[in-house]
Amino acid sequence: MQNFKIVVQYEGTRYQGWQRQASTENTLQGKFEAILTKMCETNVEIQASGRTDAGVHARGQVANFHMNTMKTPQEIMDYLNQYLPDDVAVISIEVVPERFHSRLNAKGKTYQYRVLNSFVPHIFDRRYVYQIGETLDIDSMRKAAEYFIGTHDFKAFTSTKKSKKSTVRTVESITIELVGDEICFLYKGNGFLYHMVRIMTGTVLEVGMGEKSVCDIQAILESGLRERAGALVPAKGLTLIEVRY
Amino acid sequence: MQNFKIVVQYEGTRYQGWQRQASTENTLQGKFEAILTKMCETNVEIQASGRTDAGVHARGQVANFHMNTMKTPQEIMDYLNQYLPDDVAVISIEVVPERFHSRLNAKGKTYQYRVLNSFVPHIFDRRYVYQIGETLDIDSMRKAAEYFIGTHDFKAFTSTKKSKKSTVRTVESITIELVGDEICFLYKGNGFLYHMVRIMTGTVLEVGMGEKSVCDIQAILESGLRERAGALVPAKGLTLIEVRY
Repeated sequence: MQNFKIVVQYEGTRYQGWQRQASTENTLQGKFEAILTKMCETNVEIQASGRTDAGVHARGQVANFHMNTMKTPQEIMDYLNQYLPDDVAVISIEVVPERFHSRLNAKGKTYQYRVLNSFVPHIFDRRYVYQIGETLDIDSMRKAAEYFIGTHDFKAFTSTKKSKKSTVRTVESITIELVGDEICFLYKGNGFLYHMVRIMTGTVLEVGMGEKSVCDIQAILESGLRERAGALVPAKGLTLIEVRY
Repeated sequence: MQNFKIVVQYEGTRYQGWQRQASTENTLQGKFEAILTKMCETNVEIQASGRTDAGVHARGQVANFHMNTMKTPQEIMDYLNQYLPDDVAVISIEVVPERFHSRLNAKGKTYQYRVLNSFVPHIFDRRYVYQIGETLDIDSMRKAAEYFIGTHDFKAFTSTKKSKKSTVRTVESITIELVGDEICFLYKGNGFLYHMVRIMTGTVLEVGMGEKSVCDIQAILESGLRERAGALVPAKGLTLIEVRY
């Protein structure tokens, strides 16, 4: 058995997310497993670094699968790209040690969230940005985002219902850049909870609009209460940029 | 009557081009006229700087229309953006002198043609680039492109059948830039014939692949024979960037 690591890009618009579901939904994992299983004539399972939700995009999702094959890595990549739909592609492939696991070995991830702050739509990016039309105080937004840096319990910033799993995560950096009339949030961390990036973004935007104040963030973190944090912003603005090992 | 000038963006993928057709096809002109006619409750005609072909995109198409209305320009723009499909948008509007005509007054245009030279697809740009996988001599391509600069009879570089109209045009500049594994052609000129940018691009690519030589270009121009020029590259790579007045 060989263990293959692939880097995958996809536009999430049409998909129910990465993770295969009981019902035969349109998932990315399902697509990959169907093609690899057909190629190998035996069941192949694929593991990604994490599930991305319905509608979320990826520029550098990482996945791995074990397989007995005579094909070279390049041949496997070509086969996948031949049969994958045109909104999914494998951009690199390599053989990795048997014990490599795309989720368990992930040390960090980078997510991007794009907001278009304009009344005029941007046609060519319309599937990748969340459009608003607001007067935003970017300075306050940057100050608010700083409260997330470091190791915190992000229970207030996830949609997960009661769970025994830890909601403590470490956020390494958050940058908020203005590019024309676009606001680009870049989040680096050791891992993110379900909906965490989208709720942090929604909360920071509410600070920018003056609906919340910079110093509220600390209290929301400490409260652990989802209802005190800001709105969940739409999936289409979110892209998984990179997974680090 | 007021004369309104609008700047329009669209993704051409779904359209039969700008120009309204006898049959009720999916054209951009048809979309605009239907919305404006509904708004005014009287027939409105819209003129663009030129037809873009089926599948060609625009970042800065210019059009104008005459209309009797109490609405402000901003209200007209908002109305259009409300009813236009999500792959078309008006990005600016202004009242111009009665005699302004978007096609007849156009002094120059800029077109971009994007080629992705890679075996790996780029998911997020897949509708906007022509993908090839070739070894290209960019230096020769740039030299070949220089032969187009200036005023020439471009009869060999258009698909128009016999016509009495002049096929003489002036190309002001052509730049060929490498951005990652993408080759970006930028054409500026006083106007371009039907299919001219796509045939010039196809011809320059054939020079890059060694199928034609740099010095063939001069002879092809002089011959006036379409069959001596290169292939017509796909519409999806072409975008009308700007119209100058």
